[in-house]
Amino acid sequence: MGMKALGRHLLAEFYECNPEILDDLNIVEEYMKQSADVAGATIVNWTFHRFNPQGVSGVVVIAESHLAIHTWPEYGYAAIDLFTCGESVDPWKAFNFLKDKFQAQRVDVKEIQRGKYEEIGIPEGSSHKILTA
Amino acid sequence: MGMKALGRHLLAEFYECNPEILDDLNIVEEYMKQSADVAGATIVNWTFHRFNPQGVSGVVVIAESHLAIHTWPEYGYAAIDLFTCGESVDPWKAFNFLKDKFQAQRVDVKEIQRGKYEEIGIPEGSSHKILTA
Repeated sequence: MGMKALGRHLLAEFYECNPEILDDLNIVEEYMKQSADVAGATIVNWTFHRFNPQGVSGVVVIAESHLAIHTWPEYGYAAIDLFTCGESVDPWKAFNFLKDKFQAQRVDVKEIQRGKYEEIGIPEGSSHKILTA
Repeated sequence: MGMKALGRHLLAEFYECNPEILDDLNIVEEYMKQSADVAGATIVNWTFHRFNPQGVSGVVVIAESHLAIHTWPEYGYAAIDLFTCGESVDPWKAFNFLKDKFQAQRVDVKEIQRGKYEEIGIPEGSSHKILTA
């Protein structure tokens, strides 16, 4: 089965999460890195930051694109991006893992294709070689 | 004028860019950081990586969310995310700046609201306080 785009990008809104978890830099960082493993991705680098008085932002750069999070503990809300390339990585596995870990009671998620083959001139059905880190 | 969401997220596809620029780690990093300034954002941290044999991935974490890029010089293509919160930052300024710098001959861009007030329980018309780094 060939893909029709270089990547899949999940834009997830997590509502009614556990606010204490959303406000803990180390836990958020750990879960995001674990989600990369769960999805089958290769971690390249990461950066996380806690804001004053609350909230965490961070990104895990993976060989297959990136996983990002921004949290608003005061609203129990997190905006999560799971952008992966290639067929060996499944962003939905990261989504389900994080939904469970952040204890989201309600979610909204969009899946958007990035780098559609027809737009960048790759013949449909091609298997794009994933670059190694 | 009040916003109806915490943030705006531009998902931009840049086609037919200058491939030499897309493959240059230092230039890509510099342009992405400059685009944060152009948008009126405050840079918190960043990480960029060049892949073998080609391509650059990187993210600038800003106080107002993040700016990310993944490049495929072999296709002249870059996937760019410009996710900003608050009314004092304009992701479209970063978009126009980067479109020019990467010499994109063709673009496709979607603007998506993140953290809609009605979903997270903030009264419409509220002015959300942006957290400082």
